[in-house]
Amino acid sequence: MGLTLTEKILKAHLVEGELIRGNEIGIRIDQTLTQDSTGTMAYLQFEAMDIDTVRTKCSVAYIDHNMLQQGFENADDHKYIQTVAYKHGIYFSKPGNGICHQVHVERFGIPGQTLLGSDSHTPTGGGIGMIAIGAGGLDVAVAMGGGTYYITMPHVVNIELTGKLRPFVSAKDIILEVLRRLSVKGGVGKVIEYTGEGIKHLTVPERATITNMGAELGATTSIFPSDEVTERFLKAQDRAEVFTKLMPDNDAAYDEKIVIHLDELEPLVALPHSPDLVKAVKEVAGQKVDQIAIGSCTNGSYLDLMRVAKILKGKTIHPEVSLVISPGSKQVLTMLAQNGALADLVAAGARILESGCGPCIGMGQAPATDAVSLRTFNRNFKGRCGTTSASVYLVSPETAAVSALTGVLTSPLENGDLDIAVEMPQTFVVNDNMVIKPSEHPETVEVVRGPNIKPFPLNTVLETCEGKVLIKVGDNITTDHIMPSNASLLPFRSNVPYLANFCLAPCDLEFPKRAIEQGGGMIVGGDNYGQGSSREHAALAPLQLGIKAVITKSFARMHKANLINSGILPLVFENPKDYETIEVMDELEIPEVKKQVAGKERLTVINKTKNLTYTVKLEVSDRERKMLLLGGKINRIKELAKR
Amino acid sequence: MGLTLTEKILKAHLVEGELIRGNEIGIRIDQTLTQDSTGTMAYLQFEAMDIDTVRTKCSVAYIDHNMLQQGFENADDHKYIQTVAYKHGIYFSKPGNGICHQVHVERFGIPGQTLLGSDSHTPTGGGIGMIAIGAGGLDVAVAMGGGTYYITMPHVVNIELTGKLRPFVSAKDIILEVLRRLSVKGGVGKVIEYTGEGIKHLTVPERATITNMGAELGATTSIFPSDEVTERFLKAQDRAEVFTKLMPDNDAAYDEKIVIHLDELEPLVALPHSPDLVKAVKEVAGQKVDQIAIGSCTNGSYLDLMRVAKILKGKTIHPEVSLVISPGSKQVLTMLAQNGALADLVAAGARILESGCGPCIGMGQAPATDAVSLRTFNRNFKGRCGTTSASVYLVSPETAAVSALTGVLTSPLENGDLDIAVEMPQTFVVNDNMVIKPSEHPETVEVVRGPNIKPFPLNTVLETCEGKVLIKVGDNITTDHIMPSNASLLPFRSNVPYLANFCLAPCDLEFPKRAIEQGGGMIVGGDNYGQGSSREHAALAPLQLGIKAVITKSFARMHKANLINSGILPLVFENPKDYETIEVMDELEIPEVKKQVAGKERLTVINKTKNLTYTVKLEVSDRERKMLLLGGKINRIKELAKR
Repeated sequence: MGLTLTEKILKAHLVEGELIRGNEIGIRIDQTLTQDSTGTMAYLQFEAMDIDTVRTKCSVAYIDHNMLQQGFENADDHKYIQTVAYKHGIYFSKPGNGICHQVHVERFGIPGQTLLGSDSHTPTGGGIGMIAIGAGGLDVAVAMGGGTYYITMPHVVNIELTGKLRPFVSAKDIILEVLRRLSVKGGVGKVIEYTGEGIKHLTVPERATITNMGAELGATTSIFPSDEVTERFLKAQDRAEVFTKLMPDNDAAYDEKIVIHLDELEPLVALPHSPDLVKAVKEVAGQKVDQIAIGSCTNGSYLDLMRVAKILKGKTIHPEVSLVISPGSKQVLTMLAQNGALADLVAAGARILESGCGPCIGMGQAPATDAVSLRTFNRNFKGRCGTTSASVYLVSPETAAVSALTGVLTSPLENGDLDIAVEMPQTFVVNDNMVIKPSEHPETVEVVRGPNIKPFPLNTVLETCEGKVLIKVGDNITTDHIMPSNASLLPFRSNVPYLANFCLAPCDLEFPKRAIEQGGGMIVGGDNYGQGSSREHAALAPLQLGIKAVITKSFARMHKANLINSGILPLVFENPKDYETIEVMDELEIPEVKKQVAGKERLTVINKTKNLTYTVKLEVSDRERKMLLLGGKINRIKELAKR
Repeated sequence: MGLTLTEKILKAHLVEGELIRGNEIGIRIDQTLTQDSTGTMAYLQFEAMDIDTVRTKCSVAYIDHNMLQQGFENADDHKYIQTVAYKHGIYFSKPGNGICHQVHVERFGIPGQTLLGSDSHTPTGGGIGMIAIGAGGLDVAVAMGGGTYYITMPHVVNIELTGKLRPFVSAKDIILEVLRRLSVKGGVGKVIEYTGEGIKHLTVPERATITNMGAELGATTSIFPSDEVTERFLKAQDRAEVFTKLMPDNDAAYDEKIVIHLDELEPLVALPHSPDLVKAVKEVAGQKVDQIAIGSCTNGSYLDLMRVAKILKGKTIHPEVSLVISPGSKQVLTMLAQNGALADLVAAGARILESGCGPCIGMGQAPATDAVSLRTFNRNFKGRCGTTSASVYLVSPETAAVSALTGVLTSPLENGDLDIAVEMPQTFVVNDNMVIKPSEHPETVEVVRGPNIKPFPLNTVLETCEGKVLIKVGDNITTDHIMPSNASLLPFRSNVPYLANFCLAPCDLEFPKRAIEQGGGMIVGGDNYGQGSSREHAALAPLQLGIKAVITKSFARMHKANLINSGILPLVFENPKDYETIEVMDELEIPEVKKQVAGKERLTVINKTKNLTYTVKLEVSDRERKMLLLGGKINRIKELAKR
């Protein structure tokens, strides 16, 4: 039985485990990328690992999220990321150079390599034949340090594309069709692998549109083969040398197979407020539109915007429409500015935004109250655009452009007589002058930390574990209780010491103060402690406050993992009734904690105040046990790095 | 004795008074402009005047300030302004069409006409030979309704320009030289009139740079003659028909005369934090620069940006500099996109922002902590850029561009061998498709008011005046006390009912609630009541709460005028000791108030609770007395309009 392309690449990068569906495997990461909103924390974590230079083949730090810069915090983050990248062997893509995923495919991606990015749309790289996966900042930091990345070996789904798209039907409509069929949960635990005659007619940027929005399936990633189309693209990017042909075996065994006939596809639209609420545009045509946004990492390519320019050339957008366009990269913007297409867009009434994420992540261009916004982006969750009452529809650039002229949702097939064929350029404008190469003298580089950027808290090797119970909370405490995230705290993501002042404040305003006064201690919780979002900060803030152990009736899965990563013991009462006997400010101790943690699944805790002894469970894997003994994941990586 | 150009235009527009320096004169306003941050309130005020169609020759509503659109409020304001303009005979310039001052000179300004704008840089229009004055929203609303605009007849200062600028020395250096000589207070009560052989070499956009930043002198306005240069510009804008030749008489009598020899000028810079802290660039050269911002209503013209493009072409900006460029208008952006200059700017590493005010007003691009920002803008007040610790230097586009390459403040004369000569285009790209003409069927137009846009409070004709004392405050109460302005209240500028809930809250949190419960009443204050900013809302919020009179020991001048505009009686105790006898919730009455206000400067107030009688002074002009009787300025205008 042959291998899928996914298996081939994973096999070539396997460090631990076996390629058996559902098993945990560890893989080597060749490339990493970060964006600025997750990047600051990732680099603080990387710094905490005490590794001079990244151990990947290529790591790139992009600035594309916080480009509006309403306060000093954003520019400070940019400066920190620029200097930390310069010092540690990381390429830095300046603000204005473009959106990470678009630029990475253009200038850095290499078929057959693995890419780990601290952004959920990292799978865009699958368009160029990479295994490209989105992950948390700490995972990316660990990968930069040369650490293994662990995933559950995914199922592989084959989507075979047959035939060829009609004009005015495009890559976006393919992924919308996939979402229509599979739903936003349909990709969980899976890699989507595209094959078939139809892919020959899809250029790399079009493939990247599909793999990008594959994230909305919940998939681990999506991937296209690396073929002659890929080769032509890399050659046009002056990177022919990184091309390798990569195909699945003819007799590859897929877990699932889906066929999509491209000839039969028509323009599609995802209705508010989910990317899988897909209908044909003609079914919803006539809906009045207030705003249209074209661009983003999904549809900001040269091809996309050239087609839009051809549709808008010499015309004027509807008077009641605000049309904004965010080109995917400086390369795209330069080429449109050189060939006159940008002038056509501006003349037609488009507002040109910077090459960045912009309105897609609610960074500006919030629609009016109750407005309808048509977007070529990948997500239309309620409120994501910045206006809770707005309705966001997701469409192709062709549908967006045609609708900009009519002021209502319009099928682009109605413009069927217009020639919008765009040839892929034989050569793209290659000018990497906004990418700063790592310093050749890193020892001389000073990392600039604005006042809002504080060192990342780091635990120490486990020696003793005693302290007072600093708070006792009930059942179902969420990570929103543990580390609130709101508009006033969000700009302080790079400042854990400040954030820690609000740790568990919704439960007890005095907790952070008490923890500081007592020099740390323990938390006692009820059932399902730490449910909700995967927020790393819900473990980092307690670590900052000196929390050594959290003892509960039960834990939510992700928070427990985050506590372990931070070296905080996640302990569960064997007898839940013991919870009742503990009071705030009781003095607890886990005697011989090192020995207990190293060897046992049942630990003994002494309540010195009440003169009671409790049995608690520490249910962790061997790998996690080692992390706890060393004081967390970063220390574990440092340890491994020394070998 | 001949007339200055200023006198000629004022004379042609004189409605009331005599052209005697220091006297109040009333003039007819031909054109108005608003921007979005002051426009919403101005149009609410205009609506309150119940006038169907503007009575100016031309009124234009621009959107250029709040274009980042972080929440629904901005887009709602845009929609309100677009629809209210459509209904009432006002041209609407869509977001993306450009900065009001730049576009107005390009497409609307007419030599010899008067322009009143709700923006302090309205004097830009002086570059095309207009008397163009900045004013508050209500003044502009009144002018739209056909009302007279009152100013103190200014002194006229003649600045004679001789010779010709060297390459790399430009219009910005002229106005910096004027600021160096006159200071930021040097223009108060004056119009600056430019003459001399030197003006022949200055194009209209260059003249507009000078009149624009003339606002920083505190001048009423600045003006250039309308000559063959103006004619060429208007012809190139396809508006030759609006040209009139306008010059001062040869024997015009100026109050003051200054000569500037253009040949001797060198590149200048205004140091932090005042536009008049001017030095030669060479004196400050070498200062490391973090951010460079080019554009704005001061230096965002075609000429400016073409020179910048010529300097940057084929080069790369310094790696540690963030260069942002905001073109002045869609016309400028289109032309740069057509001729390749924009591609050169992007290729060199510039970030292209929308055509709008942007970083100049702190809407985005806040520099990093302690950063140095070099800007071609007109103001460098501390904190205006959004970062309190940043230092902003004001320079010409040439100096900015050259410094972007070196990363340090650099005199552009060092690049003296480069040819950056730019010819004024014979024809500009004229495409007004982003300007929406007023509706031909205004009766069918529905004005769209988002939830944050509330009708403007309007007083009624004065009939009775009685009510309880709702608050009693001490001396030196500022408009910041009366109507606090902070980040959380600023988005509610169009929502006086909401703002009123915070009226005088810094003095007494319960005051707004009490005022609403009592159905209005009176305020009692100490000395210097209402000092501080000119904030109209400090009168509007009390009006909203039903305040009929404010009785104090004394008033600050501007707040008193605002109270009168709102129809609230500003009364001063004849015997300051009476202040002591009043308590909160005392019931006051001004018997036969209509008769008393109409005829007397001393009024009688009865304290029914204490059984006391006070004498209070009403020191107002006849014009103001009429306003008070009618319930404020807007009612007065409505009354006059009926005649």
